[in-house]
Amino acid sequence: MKQSLTLIPTMREVPSDIEVKSYKMLLRAGFLKPSTYGVYSYLPLAKRLLTKIEKIVREEIEAVGAIEISLSSLQSHDIWEQSERIHHFKDELLTLTDRHKRKLLLATSHEEIVTMLVRDEIKSYKKLPLILYQIQMKYRDEKKSRKGLIRSREFYLNDTYSFHANEISLSDTYDRIVQAFTNILNRLRLNYLVVEADSGVKGEIQAQEFIIPSEYGDTVIVKSNQSNYMANVEVANIMPNNKEKTTLLKLLEKVATPEVTTIRDLCQYFNISPESCMKTLVYLIDDEFVVVLVRGDHQVNEYKLKKVLNATSMRLANEDEINDLLGCSPSSIGPIKLPINIKVFADYAIQSLTNSVTGANEEGYHYINVNPERDFAINTYADLRYIQEGEISPDGEGITQFIYGHEIGHVIKLGTFFSEKFNANFVDEHDVSNPILMGSYQLGISRLLAILAEKCQDDNGFVWPTYLSPYDIHLIPINRDDEVQWNLSNELYNILSSYHFDVLFDDRHESPGVKFTDADLIGLPVRVMIGKKATEGIVEVKIRSTGETFEWAKEELVDRLNEFFRTNSYN
Amino acid sequence: MKQSLTLIPTMREVPSDIEVKSYKMLLRAGFLKPSTYGVYSYLPLAKRLLTKIEKIVREEIEAVGAIEISLSSLQSHDIWEQSERIHHFKDELLTLTDRHKRKLLLATSHEEIVTMLVRDEIKSYKKLPLILYQIQMKYRDEKKSRKGLIRSREFYLNDTYSFHANEISLSDTYDRIVQAFTNILNRLRLNYLVVEADSGVKGEIQAQEFIIPSEYGDTVIVKSNQSNYMANVEVANIMPNNKEKTTLLKLLEKVATPEVTTIRDLCQYFNISPESCMKTLVYLIDDEFVVVLVRGDHQVNEYKLKKVLNATSMRLANEDEINDLLGCSPSSIGPIKLPINIKVFADYAIQSLTNSVTGANEEGYHYINVNPERDFAINTYADLRYIQEGEISPDGEGITQFIYGHEIGHVIKLGTFFSEKFNANFVDEHDVSNPILMGSYQLGISRLLAILAEKCQDDNGFVWPTYLSPYDIHLIPINRDDEVQWNLSNELYNILSSYHFDVLFDDRHESPGVKFTDADLIGLPVRVMIGKKATEGIVEVKIRSTGETFEWAKEELVDRLNEFFRTNSYN
Repeated sequence: MKQSLTLIPTMREVPSDIEVKSYKMLLRAGFLKPSTYGVYSYLPLAKRLLTKIEKIVREEIEAVGAIEISLSSLQSHDIWEQSERIHHFKDELLTLTDRHKRKLLLATSHEEIVTMLVRDEIKSYKKLPLILYQIQMKYRDEKKSRKGLIRSREFYLNDTYSFHANEISLSDTYDRIVQAFTNILNRLRLNYLVVEADSGVKGEIQAQEFIIPSEYGDTVIVKSNQSNYMANVEVANIMPNNKEKTTLLKLLEKVATPEVTTIRDLCQYFNISPESCMKTLVYLIDDEFVVVLVRGDHQVNEYKLKKVLNATSMRLANEDEINDLLGCSPSSIGPIKLPINIKVFADYAIQSLTNSVTGANEEGYHYINVNPERDFAINTYADLRYIQEGEISPDGEGITQFIYGHEIGHVIKLGTFFSEKFNANFVDEHDVSNPILMGSYQLGISRLLAILAEKCQDDNGFVWPTYLSPYDIHLIPINRDDEVQWNLSNELYNILSSYHFDVLFDDRHESPGVKFTDADLIGLPVRVMIGKKATEGIVEVKIRSTGETFEWAKEELVDRLNEFFRTNSYN
Repeated sequence: MKQSLTLIPTMREVPSDIEVKSYKMLLRAGFLKPSTYGVYSYLPLAKRLLTKIEKIVREEIEAVGAIEISLSSLQSHDIWEQSERIHHFKDELLTLTDRHKRKLLLATSHEEIVTMLVRDEIKSYKKLPLILYQIQMKYRDEKKSRKGLIRSREFYLNDTYSFHANEISLSDTYDRIVQAFTNILNRLRLNYLVVEADSGVKGEIQAQEFIIPSEYGDTVIVKSNQSNYMANVEVANIMPNNKEKTTLLKLLEKVATPEVTTIRDLCQYFNISPESCMKTLVYLIDDEFVVVLVRGDHQVNEYKLKKVLNATSMRLANEDEINDLLGCSPSSIGPIKLPINIKVFADYAIQSLTNSVTGANEEGYHYINVNPERDFAINTYADLRYIQEGEISPDGEGITQFIYGHEIGHVIKLGTFFSEKFNANFVDEHDVSNPILMGSYQLGISRLLAILAEKCQDDNGFVWPTYLSPYDIHLIPINRDDEVQWNLSNELYNILSSYHFDVLFDDRHESPGVKFTDADLIGLPVRVMIGKKATEGIVEVKIRSTGETFEWAKEELVDRLNEFFRTNSYN
């Protein structure tokens, strides 16, 4: 490809507010262009990279027996109401109304429609298992989307769905797709973790995430410093603490607490630590208000809360609702003298609190010497908080540590959640009708591009490995106006192309400095420079990854390059 | 591919309300699945067909020097206001609002965003020409979308955009892309017409459409029965008719016309023909009411009207607006005694009308003996109507005939329409800044699939040519329970696959009748059946297109098939 014919708008300076490492370099090297908020266009080099990534993904997913389809992105809002996923995604779904006033949405994944398809077409165990996949644009109105391709609102995803007559078959396919994802990440030379995860779906059997560790990642992984335990912080279990209460219970007392609005204020006011306080929150869960209690230094984990309550929809009550309900602002609420019928869910850590402090449900007042059970009733104790660093590991071995990373894949044994919602049943060997078992598997394609962009770079630009690089060779005449250099460059462009190298030929009228800076930014594995020694038929070759340079005669160039790519390509 | 592992839900009966030939067979043969109104999912066989079509399109478009990119589908509503295309597409655009209350839309083509991209990155003639293309899902909220893939609301399109420093360069690329489209349609063995067309954009230099003639098509093409003249009926010019008026002009007279609401009523009432009447219409054009006159037997051509008035937005005035403006209902309006300031645009055919009939702008009254110029003023005469069959051809040679077809491609020399809207300028050799010249080229990919589905079928199902077929060979054991047949089938599946044939292996537990009916529906070029003669190592081969059958020994099968595909594949 002649560089003058394509579009690689490299930049000397990127806007200073762009902090994401991958995004910054994708802009600098002319791979990507922002379109509208959280949405991007892929320029020629990024499109070539995407194609290479997609090819690897297709090969590995098809090896599992998955069949490619293309399900519609425009979907009826109704089917998302039927699956109740509308409540899970809420504002993250992009919805629209067509000319006939029908409500539509842009799919973020395709469980509903693929379940309906299989329900209509598969009636017997004889036609199971079935594995369908696609690689396609998806849509999600992310709250925080200023992250380039890591979290964009329009993104490429590989989504695979499997359908089974029994759990053995589901487990077998699940394992083989986990292996396929593993193969893909290995072929891309990416380190990864496979961790327990939340599925976002009620009653799933198992869910795991593939995480690429990165200091820039926004997914928090909990690991043990002594065992193999590893999980997304959303699902890391915390054991009940069965510490005996030995402290003497003091008398409950109401105290005026003017200007106390936060746990921190409260601690200062009473000169106590957050561990001694009780934090009270009110949630609206499936149209019912409930009170949730956690220790002052703990954070409510809504994933766990949702699961414990088997909830479909859930959100924090707002200030008005709390005022209506309890007659005070959120900073003065507490679990004592609650209106009847309001259920109280307490984290396990509340169990061992003695003589604690809570709001009094009266503006500007708190109770001290609060003791659970004695002073108020608790409906359920459960694991409702986020684990913290330095706690005992959920598996009991060692201490927890946090690792940050990018979530790149998500595999879920869905069980019968969707097939029950959509009546997707099959008849088994004994003529008995059963709901089809399902699995769902997602791998982020544009996110993979971002992660590779983060990993494959140095200060000067990208450093693409041979098996990913948009082109193989960057061919650069140093002085385009020098006839000998120009002719040799053209000759080599034709020769290398005829040997099936993908060559980017810098035929632009630019200074050598500009061309070299651009070549470093673009990051092709091999640069072939035709300079003064063209008269002797000698070219200079530079390896982007190592910085090594060689002077090779034009006659040996093809053999040398073949040797380089043979020893540096992937298996 | 083992048929049991993929999804080909053939149907014995399709719903009786499905009339479109291509759609019907795509459903019957299990290629397509309706998702929501006017939106479809592509099942495995359709996806394979699409991939083959896309490959041919990519090869031909890239041969012109076009570079693949992927522009965002989610776009800011603002930029479509800036280009004023919002007025052209109106209700056909699917618009939405995100969580931050920003107005977005789903692109139906990408002129705005690609112009902005090139504006930002191309500043000099040295970087021109540039040709960018994509193959991508587009969105259009079609008014009539019950046509399967011919007119779906979510559709694959190949859209290409070219950027130039001068008209010679634009014309050169335009011609080469026309040639690329021609090559694609030739390779797909589709007959086509290239006709003059409307561009939908003001001030374009040239626009043509590629039409696949079909009795099922909804595009009307006008051709001459004697010359090469051919055009979309939307743009077919009609010459002014300079017939001398020889009739004696009678006195204008107002007549009560109770119960006359249509031109037909009027003709009956006065016992005249529609050719003698004048039809009056009121349009709201760029916020101004104008009156348009055509002969009673003619239809206003809004494409021409828009162009004559250089209008951005245009629609028919509604009944209330007409009542407010003229004090009567639409059936009594006419051009006499109009409120001052209302401009009158008349079709050329009005010029030669004498003693005609029009509404009197008074409920239930018409004028007779109406003569233009004498009885009312006309601001502009222009070509404002649709040509009819049997008229003199626009090029003066022969008589017009109508042909119906599917529009498959659209090529437009846009000129500077978008570059002026978005300030996309370049500096030329003389350091002078000029707007970039642009071309836009579209080829419908999913519509191509529909057209091929319409053409490649007989009563029993699809008849795919070798170069398009989702698989090459349908391998069918007649009795799966016969060990000899089953073993030979498996042996041949392995052998044929190892020779790089794409084999669909019908390993299902179905009767021979079901398998043969499905095979006919699916329509692969060659069917290899393993039946009783398996014991002698003999198989039966049937050619789908001709119905010929052969008995071949398994040893000669590969050679015979190679010979068949060699002589029946495309160049």
